[in-house]
Formats: sequence, structure tokens, C-alpha cells
Amino acid sequence: MKASFYEGNRTFTLREGEVIAPGPGEVRLNVAYTGICGTDLHVYHGAMDKRVRIPQVIGHEMSGTVAEIGEGVKGFSIGTPVVVRPLDNRAETPADRGYSHICNKLKFMGVDTTGSLQSSWTVPVFTVHKIPSGLDLKTAALVEPLAVACHDVRIGAVESGELVVVIGAGPIGMLVSLVARHRGARVVISEVNPFRIEFARSLGFEASNPKDFDLAAWVREESAGSGADVVFEVSGSKVAALDMTDLLAIRGRIVLVAIYPQPVELNLFQFFWKELRLFGARVYEPCDYEKAIEIAASRALPLESLITDVHTLDHLTEVFKHIDSDPNAMKTLIDCQS
Amino acid sequence: MKASFYEGNRTFTLREGEVIAPGPGEVRLNVAYTGICGTDLHVYHGAMDKRVRIPQVIGHEMSGTVAEIGEGVKGFSIGTPVVVRPLDNRAETPADRGYSHICNKLKFMGVDTTGSLQSSWTVPVFTVHKIPSGLDLKTAALVEPLAVACHDVRIGAVESGELVVVIGAGPIGMLVSLVARHRGARVVISEVNPFRIEFARSLGFEASNPKDFDLAAWVREESAGSGADVVFEVSGSKVAALDMTDLLAIRGRIVLVAIYPQPVELNLFQFFWKELRLFGARVYEPCDYEKAIEIAASRALPLESLITDVHTLDHLTEVFKHIDSDPNAMKTLIDCQS
Repeated sequence: MKASFYEGNRTFTLREGEVIAPGPGEVRLNVAYTGICGTDLHVYHGAMDKRVRIPQVIGHEMSGTVAEIGEGVKGFSIGTPVVVRPLDNRAETPADRGYSHICNKLKFMGVDTTGSLQSSWTVPVFTVHKIPSGLDLKTAALVEPLAVACHDVRIGAVESGELVVVIGAGPIGMLVSLVARHRGARVVISEVNPFRIEFARSLGFEASNPKDFDLAAWVREESAGSGADVVFEVSGSKVAALDMTDLLAIRGRIVLVAIYPQPVELNLFQFFWKELRLFGARVYEPCDYEKAIEIAASRALPLESLITDVHTLDHLTEVFKHIDSDPNAMKTLIDCQS
Repeated sequence: MKASFYEGNRTFTLREGEVIAPGPGEVRLNVAYTGICGTDLHVYHGAMDKRVRIPQVIGHEMSGTVAEIGEGVKGFSIGTPVVVRPLDNRAETPADRGYSHICNKLKFMGVDTTGSLQSSWTVPVFTVHKIPSGLDLKTAALVEPLAVACHDVRIGAVESGELVVVIGAGPIGMLVSLVARHRGARVVISEVNPFRIEFARSLGFEASNPKDFDLAAWVREESAGSGADVVFEVSGSKVAALDMTDLLAIRGRIVLVAIYPQPVELNLFQFFWKELRLFGARVYEPCDYEKAIEIAASRALPLESLITDVHTLDHLTEVFKHIDSDPNAMKTLIDCQS
């Protein structure tokens, strides 16, 4: 079977991978599609070389079908279409206080362990979610990032009729926008990339570049002076972090989705003055996966439009190089079928 | 009647004040005691000279009795002991979304309007809370800062058995500590002032100086590796703001009580990684006042021990100068009785 190994030094090599028979409590999957995520790009950049074990198969946004069933596994048949929630939390301890999805010794599959950029992937069954047969496997490869968005919107407790600002309209920002709008919110997007602004507009969103638009003033105007109910910070920009508090109404909520490797300045006076609230959000819980599957299967969101490219496993070095140099790429899928 | 006017330039002048008959919906109070608060010190320093109208009577942490009752006011008798919740929210608009206590056009009485550093104070009746006759008027002057603490602890949703760190043990930090402990939390205090550390210890708290103690490591040890459930940031220190995230368990909460005039650095990576939550907290709502009155009247907390000095209205310039130069002062009360 085909497997593409990350070798370090911005290089992937296609090799014959080992088909691993599922042990007790495991299933072996035929991988259909794997999406390339920002985390995979971090790996490609070498930023996670201490965490991955070179050579390693990476990748975690996948769809596939059950190929083989390990001892004691019930409820699955050969051919069942599935997605994987790539969180191995078996090292959870009471110190994690029940927050399994972000437990201290969490293994993120596809980074800390072997991933899905291969034709066959053997995983613990507790990570596997069945998907309805009506949900095609290409779209299903978006369930993982869609579950991130469902988690973020749930953490933000977005309600129908609320005014929501999403800062940063990459794939996660777009999915957050779509899910928040699906919940009935009015969603406004702040983005500096002209292509992404146009893309957001093509999906019916109000989108603008904060560099040439006073978004805070506009938001207040559109809300009879209040400001936004919720801001999703998905950009990772220092300027966004400092300015986001200006966008919010009294008791407004910020959901922090972006990863800031270094400390950045926040306007704490605004947090005090308006009693703002900030919620860190990371990955997803099982219910977010179920919600994402339900939304994807319902065809309520134009998820296919986010898929800008589909490639095979054969030339991943070139594919990553292309994604890395193209500021306009949204979601690239890798067809992993052998 | 006696009234002490803030004149600017770190000066107060005692004058004969005007006894103002209460209009419709107002009551006139005989002020018993007024506590001096950090905000009053800001005024003294000239930092709020654009907001106060010099010469002005300031002060807002008060207790007193009803002296005169305006037209249409029901439920009060002459002599009824009361405290005032000094928030005039009559300019509230729908843009404030029901958060009356921090509405955009809030007038903070004693800063934006005349305060209680005088023998007679005429106020809107909706700001007045009756207190039980068993609650002495000195202790009752602490109801206002105690209501701040009740608000903070409520915002932090502190539960019995939780591990709480309070950073900064001035009067508000001490009251937050007392209220959190009253709710059943284990409270640990971080403070740099040796006198305040000793004072906290004398009230039975674990207290230490973060400059010579690894509080984060200690907190993890005491919580079987988790970290603190809640941190109250009451110090206003940049170092505290940057380091507070290290103290917390997964999904830990921070209640931001301190006022940071300038943006400061926060470790947003920790917010993401542990899904931390930050809640801005400002003043109080009516229910916090009722809670504070209930707690004060119950005698469950050693509130009297926070009162380090009682002076009269006669020499406020000297009193403020003294408070300003004494890092060990907790709460100074002014006896305003004529």
C-alpha cells in the first residue's frame, strides 16, 4: 500500500507502507481522502521536527472506509464509511479534570503518531465516527476542520440574531463563519488577503480589509451602538489581538482560535470596562464531531466550494511547496486510495 | 453640614455644605462613614481631574441613615440604616443590552457626581439598599468593596473545594479572598508587600511572595498536577498578567479585577492550549449588594480587621497624604457624622 513519509527538510517520499492488522479495540481503514491542514504545513516547515518522528506519515483530516476489524470491536462492518477524530487520549489522568480532548498527555494522531497520508491506517476504534452513506468521502474529509468550527461556535455560545466578527478567513475562519451563520448569526469577516475577501463575499458574507475600513465603527453602527456579540480571532495577527476588544459590545465574547507562539499585547482595560470574556478553544469534543457530521450530511453548507485542489499521494513535496507559496489556496485534499 | 471638597492639586477643603432637600424619587441621607478607595486616591493624584468637577465632594463607599424622604418614595422611614450602590444608570440605552451596572453612560456617584465625603448626601432611591439593624455602620461602610468582591467571585463561578489564587492582597484582593473562602474554596494569595503577606496569614490564608517562591509549581503540587481552578488578578502588575496563565489548570478561569491603563502582554498560547477563560469584572449588580449585605450582617467574615484607621472629615488632605505614603494601609474610614 502507498504511504508518503515526511523526511524532514521539506521533503516527502512515497514508499510501500506496511499494512498493519488491527489489534484488539482497533480498526484498519482504507483512507479515501486526507486534507492538508495548517498543522501539516508547520510540520513541513520543520517547526515540529522535535515532535514528529522522522520518517513519519503525517495527516489527520481524513475520510475512509472500514477495511478490517480488530478483536472486540462491535458496530462496524467492512466498507462502513467513517472519519477519525484524531485524538488519542488514552494517557488521560484525573489532573485533566475530564477534559479528555485537551488532556496533558494527549497524542495528536498524525503528529505525535502515524497519520493518514497513506492508503491504509490502523486506529483505535474510539476515534472512529461513522458517517451517513449520503455524505461523499471528499466532503467527509472536511469533517475534522468543520468539527473545529463547531467546537469554536459552541464555546462562543453563538445565538441566532447575534452579530459575529470572524477575523481571518482561511479554511478554519471560513468554516467558523459558515457554522455561525448556520446558527442564525449575522457574520462579518475581517481579512487582509483580497482573494479571501472575494471568496468570502462569493459565499454571501460581508467581508472587508481592516487596513482600509474602520470595522469597529461600522460594527457599532450596524448594532445600534452596541458592537459585536462575538469575535472569533482566527488570524494569529498581533494587530488583531490588540484591536479585537474595540469591536465588542458590553459583555461581548472572544473565542481565541488562532495559535500565538509568543505573548502579545491585549487591551485589558476594555476587558474590565465592558466585562468582556475570552475563551480559548482547541480541537473538538465528540459532540462537535457528531455536529459536524450532521451539518456536512445535511448539505446545508457549501463545503465543496472550499476544496480548491485534489492531488494524489505521489508528489507530496511539490504539493506542499505549492500550498506554501499560494496565499489563495483554501483546502487541498490528497486522494489516498491505492 | 460638613463637606470636604476636592480642590485639585492633592488638596481637600472643609466647608459648610448645602443640605439638599430630596426631590421626587430621592432620599437625603445622614452619612455615617465613608471608606477611602483606590479610585479616590486616583482622584487625589489628579488622574481623574478631567472627570471630576472641581471643587467636588467625592467618596462612594458609605453607610448612613435616612434623614429625609422625597415625594413618591415608599418603604423607607427616617432613621433607616442604609448603604448606597453608587451607580446612576438613568442614561442607560438599549445598546447597553441590559447590563445596567456598566452601561455606556453610567455615572459613578462620587466621581461623576457629588459623593459621600460630607454629612448629608441626597441620592436617587434606586441606589439605596436597607441594611439590617444588627449591622453596625462602620462595618456597613465596607459593603461597597465587599459587593465588588461578591461580583468578582460570582463572575468566577467559584465552587466549594476549588483551588483559587488571588494575586494582589490590597483591600479588594483581601475581600475577594474572604468571599471565595466563604464559598468553600481553598484560597492562596500571591502578594509582594511583606506587611500584606503577614496580614493575609493572620487571617488564615496561605500567602507568599511570587518573587521568592515558585507559586505555579506549588499550585500544581497541591492539586495533583492540575493547577488552580480560578485566578483573580487584582494586582495590576504586568508580570502577574503574563504569568497568571501558568497557574491554571485545563479550562481554568481568570477573573480580571485590576485596571490596566495600558495594553499588556498575555500568554495567548496557554489560553489556546488549556482552553483558559478570562472574565472582565467591574463594579457590581444589585444582587451582589444584597449578597454583600447578607455576608456582612452574618458576621461570618472578619471585616472589622480590614479597617486600619478612622478619621474625621476635618483634615482630608493629610489623611490622603498619609494613605498614599503608607503601603501597609488597608481600609481607612472617614467618620462623616456632623
